[in-house]
Amino acid sequence: MKSFSRRIPRADLLIGAVPGAGQVGKLAVDHLIAELRADLVAEIYSAAFPPQIYIQSDGVAYMPRFQLYHAEHGSKSALLFTGPSQPESGEASYELTSDVLEMAKDAGVNEVYSLAAYILGKEPTERAVHGTATRPELLERLKLAGVKVMDGGEINGMNGLIFAMAPIRDMDGICLLGETAGYYVDALGAKEVLKALARLSGIEVDYSRLDALAAEAEKAIRAMMEEMSKRADASHETRPGHMDYIS
Amino acid sequence: MKSFSRRIPRADLLIGAVPGAGQVGKLAVDHLIAELRADLVAEIYSAAFPPQIYIQSDGVAYMPRFQLYHAEHGSKSALLFTGPSQPESGEASYELTSDVLEMAKDAGVNEVYSLAAYILGKEPTERAVHGTATRPELLERLKLAGVKVMDGGEINGMNGLIFAMAPIRDMDGICLLGETAGYYVDALGAKEVLKALARLSGIEVDYSRLDALAAEAEKAIRAMMEEMSKRADASHETRPGHMDYIS
Amino acid sequence: MKSFSRRIPRADLLIGAVPGAGQVGKLAVDHLIAELRADLVAEIYSAAFPPQIYIQSDGVAYMPRFQLYHAEHGSKSALLFTGPSQPESGEASYELTSDVLEMAKDAGVNEVYSLAAYILGKEPTERAVHGTATRPELLERLKLAGVKVMDGGEINGMNGLIFAMAPIRDMDGICLLGETAGYYVDALGAKEVLKALARLSGIEVDYSRLDALAAEAEKAIRAMMEEMSKRADASHETRPGHMDYIS
Amino acid sequence: MKSFSRRIPRADLLIGAVPGAGQVGKLAVDHLIAELRADLVAEIYSAAFPPQIYIQSDGVAYMPRFQLYHAEHGSKSALLFTGPSQPESGEASYELTSDVLEMAKDAGVNEVYSLAAYILGKEPTERAVHGTATRPELLERLKLAGVKVMDGGEINGMNGLIFAMAPIRDMDGICLLGETAGYYVDALGAKEVLKALARLSGIEVDYSRLDALAAEAEKAIRAMMEEMSKRADASHETRPGHMDYIS
Repeated sequence: MKSFSRRIPRADLLIGAVPGAGQVGKLAVDHLIAELRADLVAEIYSAAFPPQIYIQSDGVAYMPRFQLYHAEHGSKSALLFTGPSQPESGEASYELTSDVLEMAKDAGVNEVYSLAAYILGKEPTERAVHGTATRPELLERLKLAGVKVMDGGEINGMNGLIFAMAPIRDMDGICLLGETAGYYVDALGAKEVLKALARLSGIEVDYSRLDALAAEAEKAIRAMMEEMSKRADASHETRPGHMDYIS
Repeated sequence: MKSFSRRIPRADLLIGAVPGAGQVGKLAVDHLIAELRADLVAEIYSAAFPPQIYIQSDGVAYMPRFQLYHAEHGSKSALLFTGPSQPESGEASYELTSDVLEMAKDAGVNEVYSLAAYILGKEPTERAVHGTATRPELLERLKLAGVKVMDGGEINGMNGLIFAMAPIRDMDGICLLGETAGYYVDALGAKEVLKALARLSGIEVDYSRLDALAAEAEKAIRAMMEEMSKRADASHETRPGHMDYIS
Repeated sequence: MKSFSRRIPRADLLIGAVPGAGQVGKLAVDHLIAELRADLVAEIYSAAFPPQIYIQSDGVAYMPRFQLYHAEHGSKSALLFTGPSQPESGEASYELTSDVLEMAKDAGVNEVYSLAAYILGKEPTERAVHGTATRPELLERLKLAGVKVMDGGEINGMNGLIFAMAPIRDMDGICLLGETAGYYVDALGAKEVLKALARLSGIEVDYSRLDALAAEAEKAIRAMMEEMSKRADASHETRPGHMDYIS
Repeated sequence: MKSFSRRIPRADLLIGAVPGAGQVGKLAVDHLIAELRADLVAEIYSAAFPPQIYIQSDGVAYMPRFQLYHAEHGSKSALLFTGPSQPESGEASYELTSDVLEMAKDAGVNEVYSLAAYILGKEPTERAVHGTATRPELLERLKLAGVKVMDGGEINGMNGLIFAMAPIRDMDGICLLGETAGYYVDALGAKEVLKALARLSGIEVDYSRLDALAAEAEKAIRAMMEEMSKRADASHETRPGHMDYIS
């Protein structure tokens, strides 16, 4: 069961991401939607969600759904795809991606970008953006844009399917993966992905909101670490007393 | 696999509920079907039921199914939806709801009500009716009708989907949830929900059958509690002897 | 995935059974297929079977499938439905039954019979045939034919669905259940069901093959019981010695 | 969700295998594809794979898919079907096979071959090829081609379905199973299957690449066994010392 609303205007690109590690891809797409003042052009409901609705603080009921936005930027136009979570089953992931790519193809899209995370498992220093694509020629473009071309590994979930299934409908697919620790929501990872995307697609936006988000997150993390370090000191101070007690 | 029978006449409203906590919504819809002498206009068979049929006491075989009734009340007409149980899977819940809403839309419905339970986990004193809806404007109408607008939480199962999926087909959706303890079949909860529905929709019926049902239930519960209290007294009497034995 | 072969000729009745307790229904339908020299008119392959094929002793590969036969008997014509096992899921049971009933309806069928077992859990003495149907009027016909009309209980699996789903396509449905112990293949149970079916439908065949099958089964069971009784006697004889050893 | 690309040219035969024991069938089909310089004519994507894509060493993303190739050989033309793994569910196996057979039928195919393994569980000495087919007449051809006709057993998975479902679309089906130990990738088993296929279909290719593969595998296995035997000797030598230590 799926339901599409509204007409989808012409577009050159599809840029998509659903939630994943560090929310890197999702943050990046949401940032584009906000900065480009994109219009909501389709909502996709899926029986792959649990049968559950949420009541918002304003009292209005909310049903989980995927969303497709449309934005213009100079001479370029883009569809922006996002959603609240990964679908619950692999089959639903394939089917939803297939539906979204069909909508994109019908709108004239010829290049599909997935935005995702490249998990380091530790704080990134270099903040490189890694990439893969569906044709060798695209990899040359990635290199010129400063993207590190991957030479192995796998991409799990719907963010992998979005770009990789593009050739089935004769579109190009590119995946940009921003380095992230993976254990916190990473606005800087999202920013680096967007900067690489700007070099590739010409769609450049202001990143100050992501910077502010990152600054806030850093402050919160620093405060937490100072707190932890104080507790560690305090526990050192009490230890002698504790040992006296034992001895 | 689904099978629809009969033509569905024009209707303004869809009012639906499947079994849930305290049977509040189901009792309310069944009461409307009986009081409005509604006509059965569609039966929906579903492969989401177990492959099992039941033999009634008159010897006729019965297959589980969902039912759609039609009723007129003054200048208003309503479709009434109910069924024997929640579908076995989330996917089937979405699909069945989608089918029912399509039938409602085709019949001219523009407002969809789900009737459900607001579980307190203890005997309700105030017997308030809580509500949510699919547009902020509808919440104003709920307030005027004495319904407490919710500001959080979730509604699980098909009763949540019935009203929340209405906007997909350009209909309004309202959910009314009657307070109930949740651990007994609660005719008074159903009555309060129907009274709120009457203030909102103009469809008012006689509630004496629900009152009688509630009185019966109360009598049964009181008898049970007296029985339990007698047993407790009896056990108090025996306790001293028991303590003698211990001391 | 389903595949139907050949044209299905006109028919008045559908008589169907898949394997169940005591193989009562399956034996009965297979007997009709053989005695009426029925023609195979459709084969239904189903993705609900495991992906597995069997090699017969003659070297030919066999794929599990459901089968529809057609037979004439005097002025009556019947479709006969059977298969190698119950479908693996409830959903597949509903869908297959729906497909078969659609084929039957298209062929002009207006009366559908399921043949099944009425499990006693002990050797039946009376060998009654029990029944249920989809309309009260049909129950009167059952009584006149000496069938005991049930007043409760449930019928599980596809044999229940075959007749109970008939009204969805405006056909009558009747289920005949032959008493059986349930723990051996019961040709006499099948014979009694067929005799009741003959009184109801006018389709009467020779039962000598079922009698022969029952006689063989009885001989085998008697031999087994005599063997068990001998062993029991023998073990009585050895017991004293065994006890000597212990004491 | 499935996607087919390109036109499929006329063909007489379909020869197919997906991975199974000893990779016998898969190696055989891959060898034919390479030796006959077959053209890729269709790719079949399936939601039955996990939602996962792979990055190749050249940086290009790869999505798992089934493939259909086309080759000419003298007056004969063949479709060659293969894939990266068995589908994840039985239902998907049936549906994919059904799709492939439909494509084959549309291309004019009238004979379908599955290539598979006949697991011995020990090193094969005779290297016989076993077979089964969908009509008794085909078994005569198998015997003339030196294939041992099976008289029982079952074939699991999609390699069984490929040939056994052929009659549903009025095609003949033949399965050739090469003897293999089952615990190593067996190029000689694949070669024997292809030699039997050549006698039946007239499609003969050079087998030197399979011989080379088998020689490499044999060398590797011999080296491994010598290593194991040396270790066994060495452990004998150290045992006395070990025992001294204990005593």
